[in-house]
Amino acid sequence: MLGPQMWASARQGLSRGLSRNARGWASGEGKKVDIAGIYPPVTTPFAANAEVDYGKLEENLHKLGTLPFRGLVVQGSTGEFPFLTSSERLEVVSRVHQVMPKDKLLLAGSGCESTQATVEMTVSMAQVGADAVMVVTPFYYRGRMNSSALIHHYTKVADLSPIPVVLYSVPANTGLDLPVDAVVTLSQHPNIVGMKDSGGDVTRIALIVHKTRKQDFQVLAGSVGFLLASYALGAVGGVCALANVLGAQVCQLERLCLTGQWEAAQKLQLRLIEPNTAVTRRFGIPGLKKAMDWFGYYGGPCRAPLQGLSSADEEALRVDFSSNGWL
Amino acid sequence: MLGPQMWASARQGLSRGLSRNARGWASGEGKKVDIAGIYPPVTTPFAANAEVDYGKLEENLHKLGTLPFRGLVVQGSTGEFPFLTSSERLEVVSRVHQVMPKDKLLLAGSGCESTQATVEMTVSMAQVGADAVMVVTPFYYRGRMNSSALIHHYTKVADLSPIPVVLYSVPANTGLDLPVDAVVTLSQHPNIVGMKDSGGDVTRIALIVHKTRKQDFQVLAGSVGFLLASYALGAVGGVCALANVLGAQVCQLERLCLTGQWEAAQKLQLRLIEPNTAVTRRFGIPGLKKAMDWFGYYGGPCRAPLQGLSSADEEALRVDFSSNGWL
Amino acid sequence: MLGPQMWASARQGLSRGLSRNARGWASGEGKKVDIAGIYPPVTTPFAANAEVDYGKLEENLHKLGTLPFRGLVVQGSTGEFPFLTSSERLEVVSRVHQVMPKDKLLLAGSGCESTQATVEMTVSMAQVGADAVMVVTPFYYRGRMNSSALIHHYTKVADLSPIPVVLYSVPANTGLDLPVDAVVTLSQHPNIVGMKDSGGDVTRIALIVHKTRKQDFQVLAGSVGFLLASYALGAVGGVCALANVLGAQVCQLERLCLTGQWEAAQKLQLRLIEPNTAVTRRFGIPGLKKAMDWFGYYGGPCRAPLQGLSSADEEALRVDFSSNGWL
Amino acid sequence: MLGPQMWASARQGLSRGLSRNARGWASGEGKKVDIAGIYPPVTTPFAANAEVDYGKLEENLHKLGTLPFRGLVVQGSTGEFPFLTSSERLEVVSRVHQVMPKDKLLLAGSGCESTQATVEMTVSMAQVGADAVMVVTPFYYRGRMNSSALIHHYTKVADLSPIPVVLYSVPANTGLDLPVDAVVTLSQHPNIVGMKDSGGDVTRIALIVHKTRKQDFQVLAGSVGFLLASYALGAVGGVCALANVLGAQVCQLERLCLTGQWEAAQKLQLRLIEPNTAVTRRFGIPGLKKAMDWFGYYGGPCRAPLQGLSSADEEALRVDFSSNGWL
Repeated sequence: MLGPQMWASARQGLSRGLSRNARGWASGEGKKVDIAGIYPPVTTPFAANAEVDYGKLEENLHKLGTLPFRGLVVQGSTGEFPFLTSSERLEVVSRVHQVMPKDKLLLAGSGCESTQATVEMTVSMAQVGADAVMVVTPFYYRGRMNSSALIHHYTKVADLSPIPVVLYSVPANTGLDLPVDAVVTLSQHPNIVGMKDSGGDVTRIALIVHKTRKQDFQVLAGSVGFLLASYALGAVGGVCALANVLGAQVCQLERLCLTGQWEAAQKLQLRLIEPNTAVTRRFGIPGLKKAMDWFGYYGGPCRAPLQGLSSADEEALRVDFSSNGWL
Repeated sequence: MLGPQMWASARQGLSRGLSRNARGWASGEGKKVDIAGIYPPVTTPFAANAEVDYGKLEENLHKLGTLPFRGLVVQGSTGEFPFLTSSERLEVVSRVHQVMPKDKLLLAGSGCESTQATVEMTVSMAQVGADAVMVVTPFYYRGRMNSSALIHHYTKVADLSPIPVVLYSVPANTGLDLPVDAVVTLSQHPNIVGMKDSGGDVTRIALIVHKTRKQDFQVLAGSVGFLLASYALGAVGGVCALANVLGAQVCQLERLCLTGQWEAAQKLQLRLIEPNTAVTRRFGIPGLKKAMDWFGYYGGPCRAPLQGLSSADEEALRVDFSSNGWL
Repeated sequence: MLGPQMWASARQGLSRGLSRNARGWASGEGKKVDIAGIYPPVTTPFAANAEVDYGKLEENLHKLGTLPFRGLVVQGSTGEFPFLTSSERLEVVSRVHQVMPKDKLLLAGSGCESTQATVEMTVSMAQVGADAVMVVTPFYYRGRMNSSALIHHYTKVADLSPIPVVLYSVPANTGLDLPVDAVVTLSQHPNIVGMKDSGGDVTRIALIVHKTRKQDFQVLAGSVGFLLASYALGAVGGVCALANVLGAQVCQLERLCLTGQWEAAQKLQLRLIEPNTAVTRRFGIPGLKKAMDWFGYYGGPCRAPLQGLSSADEEALRVDFSSNGWL
Repeated sequence: MLGPQMWASARQGLSRGLSRNARGWASGEGKKVDIAGIYPPVTTPFAANAEVDYGKLEENLHKLGTLPFRGLVVQGSTGEFPFLTSSERLEVVSRVHQVMPKDKLLLAGSGCESTQATVEMTVSMAQVGADAVMVVTPFYYRGRMNSSALIHHYTKVADLSPIPVVLYSVPANTGLDLPVDAVVTLSQHPNIVGMKDSGGDVTRIALIVHKTRKQDFQVLAGSVGFLLASYALGAVGGVCALANVLGAQVCQLERLCLTGQWEAAQKLQLRLIEPNTAVTRRFGIPGLKKAMDWFGYYGGPCRAPLQGLSSADEEALRVDFSSNGWL
């Protein structure tokens, strides 16, 4: 079982409230939470019969608990949330909440296609212990998801959510970028505290930082691939799939950025790009889970239709880690 | 209430089993159903409070029943299925089944992201009266949805489905084309009877027709925009959003194609393109529902986050109909 | 040497002025040329030293002359025009003009990036014997090539051209679709007689046919892959790379379409798709030239940076022909 | 007239050979030039009659000469090179060479579609005074421009070029990204010294830096929009259209990055994004030239088909500058 003191001890050396946020964000001015920091988007472990393996989930959390994360993202894209039933989504969050120490943030993905379903899932996520929700853009009707529609959607969700809302744009999955003008408008909502942007266009991230600078609005990079660049441009953290495998290194990169050690940060950043691409764009969650198996976590199978890696892919995955000195 | 005799009378003049299928498909050779013909993908009517309005649904079905459709598609993209709960999806299909005559086909969308959920929804759809299921490609993890993954997915669904399966590729929504080689492999499955292709690339449709010619496999165009071309290349019908508004005209186009009146077919086809684009790509379901209101059906509002049309958009929609002589 | 009588004899059986154009186009009403028919976009033969081999060009033309083409396209994308100097472009057209009979049309590609250069090349093409020019959209600054810019460009070219102008949209090469509204505007210009559309979106082709129906404006399909569909929707011919290899078959497909033998047309169309894709999208001009070598023409090498096929690609190319009964 | 001493005085305070290159690149180890620094890609001024206005060119160069640039890029995409004849391309470079001091680098764009033409243009560029050439990827046949073809192309050019070669990838214009594996292979060529990457994907830029770290290979950002991020990841400079307008500010951003003043750099970077987007992606060269008119340079018209800005666009352009405090 993961004890609060383990998480606390993992946080040594980083006095977040002070140095972290170069943009002068301060809690207590109407918005409810400081989300700055690193988050692994935790995977959902499945047993061989495709059922959620809550025991393995707790084991993984136990190991992740030794690292100085700001919190955990549960039911992000990496969590295979589209493959879970509503009750599974809630149960996973509930279990994570139970074993997480209270000084960590639990960001739960609550996005659904309809506004109403998203509101209901958001409320339920709050009830099972989420500290904030991360709401992916609806996207099936992306041809009609213009700024106006998305502003209506997120405003409704934020109005009715008992906990803060984080916007979530992930075009590789959704085929849709949350437009900058919509983000700027939404940043003024008192219950919308920030955004996770997984698109990798740091000029866009910088523009969002710039145009929301008068709001309490925090931007998280959606991948370690562009984490250093995002920090350099005013982002305050990242949700990084690779942190499920190389969590210490991702946190080290954070620390190097926050303490202005940019040369060392650059060296580390460069060595993380290939393994990160391998566990995201190149081999997806099957690649991430395979790497987790190698690094002492439980990866295990994905739910269908996601397939396991071929042996050739597995070898290529290994090279992406070993050629950068991680294996 | 819609009586079977109304549907039957609507079918006058078309002896489908004989002339329809130029590719020589014959039922009873292992595959269970002839899907050739025109289908409106019915919309889901909502009341002002966003609840499904089953009364309006029945009214619409009553009017659609006067037309010589082969059947109805329920819970396609046009049906806003991603905005419905699982029980709503099933209830809508159940209601349609109750009021539809038995000689019409009820194709129900049962696609979900996970294979397991798709199987379960498929079985349930059969229980509430669907004659076949139309299964959209899973797509959230489209980077990993290669032919191998999709073949596994559809094979599993088809193996376990008590009713025939129709593949459904709709890249405008999913960002994913079901690869031709996967279609060819899947066409050999005894419980996979055909495909709806909404991509609009008729060269691809022709290639699929060509490479599945030795199978009992039928291709439906996913839009009236390329219906004539699809017939000319060996498709056997279409699932056409515009048929919710100009159903008689879409059926007339079918008849002209099936009876070889290509010049008249061309003239009609050309006049249907702009209104069709208007109620699909250009203005989406809100455009379709608005047009339904004009043409004696109940359109009504969409569920959020889909927004109603602006007055400027509504005017442009009207021009797309009036400039082609339909209003 | 290719004699006029050979070309004339090749045209047996097709009374083009009468039956060809279902849209009622008639020459002499202000526009200068009827472009209806099939054209091979001729390749530019290179010797081993990469110089243009004019002898081989004449040999190819001699063989093409036995087929009932409406004419030849010279300096289309298939002609590797971007790899030729201006004087080579003109010399090739001049040579083709000298050996072609005068009842055939010589459509010469004269597009350049700037309007001024396009005008100059157009005038020069007329001087060396082109009957009409085919002008590709400028595209390097595609972000600024909106309808207004393209209308200005083509209007200027058409105003100053001594010969008729054919618009040419080829998004696979240019990343740019000539917008439908620009086409409609340009169709009213007395010196713009038609368009070659290589995009493959037959709904778009149909829309262009429909919206220019009151003009003397003719649409050519840019590939045999969608030739039948284009005819069925009102196009009047095609510029077909595959006609450099299977010219008789492409002309046969034309005749079947023009004479309303749609079932036979469909069968032939389906067998042409894979070889066509092989010599265009899949293996490009190197594939086309390799196939020409097989079918009695001179293909030879491409200019660098285009590379020859690997032996694996060559084998795949062969299968695309043999599996459809052409080898 | 621009005197060498003006350029020299403009370079005060930056000892480039020492601190600039964090990656340890040192000249003299086989490669011939250190390209680290900032470059404006100079525009080509046209008179009202569309002729090149060499007088205005010299005036612009005079003003640019007061700024601490590493050199000038001539005939980049911003220079409207596709609209110039070969002799104009060379004459412009020759004129720039004549008025530029010898301690500045003149990088001349010499890319053409064919390898042979690129070689010839490269040799000619060297003859008229270019210090290095910047070679855009050939792209018209992008479907065949795989790594193998591009490696052949660039190797041939670099083998035959009397001056160093800089690779140039600009997908917004070409629709083609020079693949990372091709860059890595080409980085080993003794006459290929670096790359300009205009794609804006800094994860890709970082990966290129990382995988070429054992070569003398320098990466330049192709836009100021991601200049800070590129420096932070190991790039050594930038070719920045905005430097034609806000050259002092771009050089200041360089200095802040090179001296580790990342907070001040971030503030400046953020204010440069909107004006940069305005003069590149949003309004293109017409926007850049309009802004040059405002800032004391000669912008003037573009060659057709590029059109001037509408008054509404001009106003939006102005806001992008004024809202960031630059007007």
